[in-house]
This record gives sequence, structure tokens and C-alpha cells, in this order.
Amino acid sequence: MKQVPVGVSARHIHLSKEHIEALFGKGYELKEMKALSQPGQFAAEETVAVIGTKGKFDKVRILGPARGATQLEVSRTDAFALGVNPPVRESGNIEGTPGIKIVGPAGEIEIDKGVIVAARHIHFHTSDAEKWGIQNHQSLRVRVGGERGLVFENVVARVHETYALDMHIDTDEANASGAKTGDMAEILD
Amino acid sequence: MKQVPVGVSARHIHLSKEHIEALFGKGYELKEMKALSQPGQFAAEETVAVIGTKGKFDKVRILGPARGATQLEVSRTDAFALGVNPPVRESGNIEGTPGIKIVGPAGEIEIDKGVIVAARHIHFHTSDAEKWGIQNHQSLRVRVGGERGLVFENVVARVHETYALDMHIDTDEANASGAKTGDMAEILD
Repeated sequence: MKQVPVGVSARHIHLSKEHIEALFGKGYELKEMKALSQPGQFAAEETVAVIGTKGKFDKVRILGPARGATQLEVSRTDAFALGVNPPVRESGNIEGTPGIKIVGPAGEIEIDKGVIVAARHIHFHTSDAEKWGIQNHQSLRVRVGGERGLVFENVVARVHETYALDMHIDTDEANASGAKTGDMAEILD
Repeated sequence: MKQVPVGVSARHIHLSKEHIEALFGKGYELKEMKALSQPGQFAAEETVAVIGTKGKFDKVRILGPARGATQLEVSRTDAFALGVNPPVRESGNIEGTPGIKIVGPAGEIEIDKGVIVAARHIHFHTSDAEKWGIQNHQSLRVRVGGERGLVFENVVARVHETYALDMHIDTDEANASGAKTGDMAEILD
């Protein structure tokens, strides 16, 4: 049985170095609050506000370290509340996605793209993927059990030697399935 | 292929005759705004506020006609926002569920039970169920396709000669699967 732990991702933002400086001040560095399951990734102490045409979220957690491009990941529920209509995308694939206004303590910016609903995915260390015969970018079916049990289709495999085994779903997917961080899911095929 | 249309249920409330009077005044009758897919059921013009320990919703749609017992149906997302922890239940099965404060234009009440997250279910007219060999209360697996496609397990069959064929999921389930009202889902078994 190919079992993977579930990690539920609440709304969060990745910022470019340039945008960190625009929002927090010149030379600013994010402070690590908590390490995440993927090695080197962390939840920062800092948050920003994001403001859409219909609503806003005052405290959106920043995940570090800085990335090449700023990216806001929200659930579909969040997207309705903000008044933005992002597509379901793999992280990093932001061409043609909507932008949004972001406010920090030292400034505000308006990004012209970068808002996505993250496509559910599993991070595999290269050794896990080899053991189970799974290729990078393969589409998987993954079952979560329980009273709201379901089988997620189109779960994207992401394989890298820096990854730790973890399946990432968003809060809508967690609420619909009853799955919580640390629950185990099963890869069917 | 056993295909059923999907109906997405947003948060809503059913009220007893006694509670309609407590909230709207003696002898008050709900006004029909829009007929629902189930014959005789309607969305009323009236709304109420529901107030939890953490948050509130100002305009929760009342579905009529009056029922024997008051029942508030919310998504898990809504439940977190309100600060209430309802179980997943079939409609009408409210023993041991949490209560909540409900406010109308003529009064307010505090119910001691009745808040549920509705178990996903399919309404079958008796003739549909017979044709497909489906029993009342049978647990089904139902597939929704598309980019966020998934297979819902534990979908409850509800069979009655007054029902029209319709699969009811809540907003979390709709957002997680990408399914919209009017989309078709397929009963697998």
C-alpha cells in the first residue's frame, strides 16, 4: 500500500525578494517562525494583507524563503470572498492568472498575476518515487477514508531529491473530505 | 450510465412553525421566492441571522415549508467561522448536535440542537431507484469529472415518490470538486 501523509495548506503567499523589500523595507529578511514539511521551507513570522474587489484577508501567512515570483495561494472559498477568479494551477505556473493588491507595514504593491488555487499534489523524495514507480508530473488517484471519504483524481506527482513525502490539499479539499494534517491517504494508481 | 444532476447547497435553515412565529411574529407565513428541485420545497424571501461564539452570518436563507424541527445546515468552512462543531448528519437526524442563536425581525431564539453539516446525498424518485436497483439509505460512490474530478464515497441514497433526481453537495464539496449546480455526476456503484 502506497501511503502518504496529508498536509492541509491554508491560504498563504510566497514573495519575491523585491516584493519583500517593497512591503517590509529595504534589505528586510523574513524571520522563520516554523519549519514546514518540505526541507528548507518555513512559515514566516510576517503576514501581509491581500485586498480583492469584494473582500480582504488581513493576515495572510508568508512562506519563505523568497521565491523568484510572488504567488498567492487561496482556496476557491477564499477566492469568492476576495472577488478574484484564479485558475487551478501547479505552483510556479502563474502566466495568465489574476493579480491582487498586497499590503505590508512599509508599503503596498499591486501584482498583475500570481493568484492561484493550488492543484492538489504529492511531494515525493526521489527514492519514494523510484520505490513506487512514480514519475514526476504523473497524475495520480488518491483515496482518503472516513465518513466523508473520497478519491481525489488528478493529483500531481512532484518528484525531487529535496522533497519529503507529503500530500498537499487546500482547506476546501480538507473540509470536503474530512482529512486533517497528519492523516494518511492511499495512492490507488 | 447512471447520471444525476448536481445541486450545490449553500448554508440554509429550516424552521419549525413555532420558531417562524418566534422570529417573525404570530401567525407569520413564509413567502416563496423560488421553487427548489424537490417538489413543494422553496427558498423563502425571508432570511435570519445566526450567531455563533466566533462569528455570525447576517442573511441565512430560510427554506420552506415549515418543518417539524428547526435545522441549520452549514459547510465545515461555515462552522469554523461561526465557532460551532456540528457532525456530518442526514437531514432530520439532529439528536446530540450543537445549537445556535437565531435572530429574526420580531425576536430571537436559542436552539439547543439542530446544527449539522449535511451528509451528501442523492434524492431519487421511486421510479429512478427501481430502474437502477438502488435502495433507500444505500451508500453510493459517485464520480464528478473535470480538472478537480473526484469520487465521493458514502453518498446516501434517499428514495421517495415525492423526490426528484438530484445530488446535493455542500459548498466545500463543490469547491473541492469544481462541480456546479446543473453539472452531471455518475453513480459508480
